Amino acid sequence: MNPSPRVFLQAEPLTPDAFAPFGQVIERNGRHSHVINDGSSRRYDDLAQLEADRDGRLALSIFQATTRLSPFLLNTMERHPLGSQAFFPLQGQAFLIAVSARAPDPDHPDIGSLRAFLSNGLQGVNFRKDVWHHPLIALSDGDFLVADRLGPGNNCEEIDIARWQVGIRH
Amino acid sequence: MNPSPRVFLQAEPLTPDAFAPFGQVIERNGRHSHVINDGSSRRYDDLAQLEADRDGRLALSIFQATTRLSPFLLNTMERHPLGSQAFFPLQGQAFLIAVSARAPDPDHPDIGSLRAFLSNGLQGVNFRKDVWHHPLIALSDGDFLVADRLGPGNNCEEIDIARWQVGIRH
Repeated sequence: MNPSPRVFLQAEPLTPDAFAPFGQVIERNGRHSHVINDGSSRRYDDLAQLEADRDGRLALSIFQATTRLSPFLLNTMERHPLGSQAFFPLQGQAFLIAVSARAPDPDHPDIGSLRAFLSNGLQGVNFRKDVWHHPLIALSDGDFLVADRLGPGNNCEEIDIARWQVGIRH
Repeated sequence: MNPSPRVFLQAEPLTPDAFAPFGQVIERNGRHSHVINDGSSRRYDDLAQLEADRDGRLALSIFQATTRLSPFLLNTMERHPLGSQAFFPLQGQAFLIAVSARAPDPDHPDIGSLRAFLSNGLQGVNFRKDVWHHPLIALSDGDFLVADRLGPGNNCEEIDIARWQVGIRH
């Protein structure tokens, strides 16, 4: 049984401008495109810039996610110092994103700078390297295509924030 | 109006073994996974290995594809000498894949080595660099997430093969 949230974070709509400090929103809506393949496709180009250090490499994986309880209490923040991490929902399912700006302490997420976003299900996100974020918060059971960095070295730092008792409203 | 196919290529089921000479099949089905994120997700790890040369970088894009006419006549083969190219259907839509082994002539696709595969809609593919393949063949209107290499240099070679008059059966 989850403890009750002490404070609530209101999820914002996921827009490229609002999310810019943390990475990129991956979506067609409102973006430029050009026609390719003899007129049979439109390419919405370069929506997410993947990053990996020289010792690593980029790969695609699938996360099979189960529904998180509501109201959802943030429990962990993590960051990937060696590369970016992108998520895209494969059944058009909405999901929540929680991030923390790095200031004032670059080595810890910061409760005062937490922000939450709601993907509409046609939107993915790409977290830039070093951006503190909550592990995937699914609102329904479903799959996500993930693009991230694999290879030697520790690419995941985690901090337990359950004691902050922050819930997300959406 | 398309001319009629002179020969037909029978699409094979898309399996990792059958597709191995050309790249990777991106799917959960039949793959190993491990539990992550405090038990809330399963990770099917490293399903596609993305490749880019040192001068390039990897990015995510979306292709909005329209239905190709049936019977579909192959018109072009292309290859990307500077990196891999991955496609994953975002509405669970089936699609066709056509590839050519490089022998006997590494600089041209070869009609005798053409093979066609049918994705079941829960499967994506990643073409290894230098693999000759047909541009996206959608069987219904829908979107694909694409991971490929961007950057300087010519990363797309194309050869017109319409004169071969090869159709695909599926």
